[in-house]
Amino acid sequence: MSAYAAGLGLGTRDSQGRWLDVFFPAPILSPSDALAEILSGHGTDPLDVAALESIATACEASGEQATASLARRIAGSGQPATAVGLAEDTGPDSVPAAYLKLHLLSHRLVLPQQTNLQGVFGVLPNVAWTNLGAIAIDELPARQLDARLRGDVLEVSCVDKFPKMTNYVVPAGVRIAHTARVRLGAYVGEGTTVMHEGFINFNAGTVGPGMIEGRVSAGVLIGADSDLGGGCSTMGTLSGGGDIIISVGKQCLIGANAGVGIPLGDRCTVEAGLYVTAGTKVTMLDGERNAIETLSARELAGMSDLLFRRNSLNGAVECLTNRTAIELNSELHAHN
Amino acid sequence: MSAYAAGLGLGTRDSQGRWLDVFFPAPILSPSDALAEILSGHGTDPLDVAALESIATACEASGEQATASLARRIAGSGQPATAVGLAEDTGPDSVPAAYLKLHLLSHRLVLPQQTNLQGVFGVLPNVAWTNLGAIAIDELPARQLDARLRGDVLEVSCVDKFPKMTNYVVPAGVRIAHTARVRLGAYVGEGTTVMHEGFINFNAGTVGPGMIEGRVSAGVLIGADSDLGGGCSTMGTLSGGGDIIISVGKQCLIGANAGVGIPLGDRCTVEAGLYVTAGTKVTMLDGERNAIETLSARELAGMSDLLFRRNSLNGAVECLTNRTAIELNSELHAHN
Amino acid sequence: MSAYAAGLGLGTRDSQGRWLDVFFPAPILSPSDALAEILSGHGTDPLDVAALESIATACEASGEQATASLARRIAGSGQPATAVGLAEDTGPDSVPAAYLKLHLLSHRLVLPQQTNLQGVFGVLPNVAWTNLGAIAIDELPARQLDARLRGDVLEVSCVDKFPKMTNYVVPAGVRIAHTARVRLGAYVGEGTTVMHEGFINFNAGTVGPGMIEGRVSAGVLIGADSDLGGGCSTMGTLSGGGDIIISVGKQCLIGANAGVGIPLGDRCTVEAGLYVTAGTKVTMLDGERNAIETLSARELAGMSDLLFRRNSLNGAVECLTNRTAIELNSELHAHN
Repeated sequence: MSAYAAGLGLGTRDSQGRWLDVFFPAPILSPSDALAEILSGHGTDPLDVAALESIATACEASGEQATASLARRIAGSGQPATAVGLAEDTGPDSVPAAYLKLHLLSHRLVLPQQTNLQGVFGVLPNVAWTNLGAIAIDELPARQLDARLRGDVLEVSCVDKFPKMTNYVVPAGVRIAHTARVRLGAYVGEGTTVMHEGFINFNAGTVGPGMIEGRVSAGVLIGADSDLGGGCSTMGTLSGGGDIIISVGKQCLIGANAGVGIPLGDRCTVEAGLYVTAGTKVTMLDGERNAIETLSARELAGMSDLLFRRNSLNGAVECLTNRTAIELNSELHAHN
Repeated sequence: MSAYAAGLGLGTRDSQGRWLDVFFPAPILSPSDALAEILSGHGTDPLDVAALESIATACEASGEQATASLARRIAGSGQPATAVGLAEDTGPDSVPAAYLKLHLLSHRLVLPQQTNLQGVFGVLPNVAWTNLGAIAIDELPARQLDARLRGDVLEVSCVDKFPKMTNYVVPAGVRIAHTARVRLGAYVGEGTTVMHEGFINFNAGTVGPGMIEGRVSAGVLIGADSDLGGGCSTMGTLSGGGDIIISVGKQCLIGANAGVGIPLGDRCTVEAGLYVTAGTKVTMLDGERNAIETLSARELAGMSDLLFRRNSLNGAVECLTNRTAIELNSELHAHN
Repeated sequence: MSAYAAGLGLGTRDSQGRWLDVFFPAPILSPSDALAEILSGHGTDPLDVAALESIATACEASGEQATASLARRIAGSGQPATAVGLAEDTGPDSVPAAYLKLHLLSHRLVLPQQTNLQGVFGVLPNVAWTNLGAIAIDELPARQLDARLRGDVLEVSCVDKFPKMTNYVVPAGVRIAHTARVRLGAYVGEGTTVMHEGFINFNAGTVGPGMIEGRVSAGVLIGADSDLGGGCSTMGTLSGGGDIIISVGKQCLIGANAGVGIPLGDRCTVEAGLYVTAGTKVTMLDGERNAIETLSARELAGMSDLLFRRNSLNGAVECLTNRTAIELNSELHAHN
């Protein structure tokens, strides 16, 4: 069995030598045993030139030319560098390891929920992301004053544990109209357009293609050819979704300003402006528009070919289906 | 008949010589015949110094001093430049022509829907907009690594076919609290305030004055003295509005988190949180609050003096009017 | 009685010498009489080196070492500087005074609504906030062209009277995932996380701790341990809330895409997607889920332990309580 992942990165450290971020130009999933061994065991102090040269030489001997070349370029740069080799998919125990895992997601090497991020909030420091790079929060006031005394402004664009993805990687075949709304660790599938109102958290994303004008919360995955309308909401597991992991299947349409608190199957539609929570009481309609029964939306988790709307004459939340009454009964009570 | 439009611009090209963007400091609608001829026929390769000097000389001979002066400044800059003269209002067939048309809109020389943008998505390349300017997507990874090796961060603020408007022009008399949410090609009328949650797509905008805290979708025009509340939605023709072009008249108020899928006349109000789609069944109330009839919202397209709300006792979507029952009947069935 | 506030700041002026912004590294509430006197009476022209040296010397004589040290650093910088001493809490009558007051809020020296901001919109100029600092709107086109002629892009990130807070101060113990959405003058309490969809206006904020993924409008204060869900709305006094000042108490939860137009007490919940305006008719339910009476939401202003939802079977907006019918009647009609 091979190692889990590895990478050689450049990063930023604060004045006490703590890593603030690490940029991995070419993160590797399932590296060769040789490469994993070469990149492991270097600790979290920055690599010195000798260590980088040694890594480069060992990589060349193992046919790992790309990593060798990267090591030599980094050695010549004088920038703080780190090597990470993860034998197994355990929760990240250091800033470099956490960043490597976030890169795996954003480079589309692993899907959301497919890498262990246990403890990542505890490992990552809160950082001020500025036009001069990552700055430790406690060093910020002095840096802001220094900039002003020079006649400059220190632009602080984000104060967070997670930076924006596009300053680390822009995966192929996507548009992201406003990059501040996609965190490093997002998985943005090929053919995805994230409009200005779209948002993708870390450990969440889209299979692609698709149009995202709403919010993809942590843990949520959106299937191919689905469309999230402007300002729509997917409930994250941290925000009321409880233990249910929200997902949206293929060819779904969640309308503008709508929301979902249950996982949807394929070809589902939620009307603009309607929020379906797990507890919403829903009147099921068969293919003839007859009301069959009323149940909680959570009982519809994962079902396909549903259309949710609020009846604008009587305010009832309805779920339109293309099934007969008998088919619906059978499907809804299969697990009773 | 004069030519349609012309302009002299500076732009950015990728390493293969393809235009990524063009900045027109002073786009011209209906140029003089002389100016149109001077700026036409230069192709899409960058103008060399001789061509720019020749343009300047010809402009001076025709009394076009502003353009002459601009040509000389550009000649001295060494930056890639282009001249565009459009004889007619045809769909843009090049990046410079597309950018000229987007500038016409944002300089308020033409209203949304009043210039032919057919094919603009196909003409415009997807571009990484960075603190170092426009960068081709396929050149981005190398540029990101180069920046890190220098100890810098390449800030990638947008990955899109359309850049933000304010890096090209800020029309007079507006506030735009967060500029990433207004695309080049937006028409932002004098006296418009676009708050942080506001958004204006290309080929859309506001007559002004007005307060925009919601989303103005592609193709939508908002009338004078109208107020779009925080997070409200206007349905674009691409997103479910179908063939209906959505617009909002004068002195309208769309409440926070509300939405409209039909065009509104003047002095209309949509209650906060209510989404009125074309298919919403609406109970019409006369000036005495008597229910007159129920119809689909699309039948109310363009009518003035309507107030939409969801009755909070029975969930019905209602439309309050100031008409008598007889007036309402007459107005609603005028075209039957 | 001591003076109200004072500060020594660096700022930006336009080509006509008007202040565009002022940065106060260390604003002071209730300064000593001596310090207030030293910093008062300097007018709004920039301080020259002699004035700064004189301020430094006087501060040293009064034991105000921090301000003395700041004055000497500014004197050495050559940047435009200003001193402000406010005897009383009157509405700001100059740009430096307005900025000092906004700093008091964002440094958490005063709570929202606790400093007089009367007239601040009239005092503050509309400014283009760029990567080269604050630029006067009427000087922007020339600066944009100059940048392009150099091969640069002038990044215009905001066109507004109020800049973003984090370029002036990042108070301790907060995360702000996307800083463009928090204006200078916001009060962001310790332990507050403002997610990408969160927004905090000036003269508004959070006591902290809390999670803000919705919009905190001007004048609104959010209590400790409250959670504003993604895209939710609080109605500002300027936007339909009328004379009622909206606030949210402790341990409240406003669901995603919901909204409130009334002040909430403690431990209140508003269901995702429900907008409660002051005029919403609400059916009150007692602890046994019996309907007790129907009233306007404004009559519930400030009450605690309420849960608002829209009944998904019949569309009625309901308010669930933990009281008996008798308790509810007593509480609701206490002021009749």
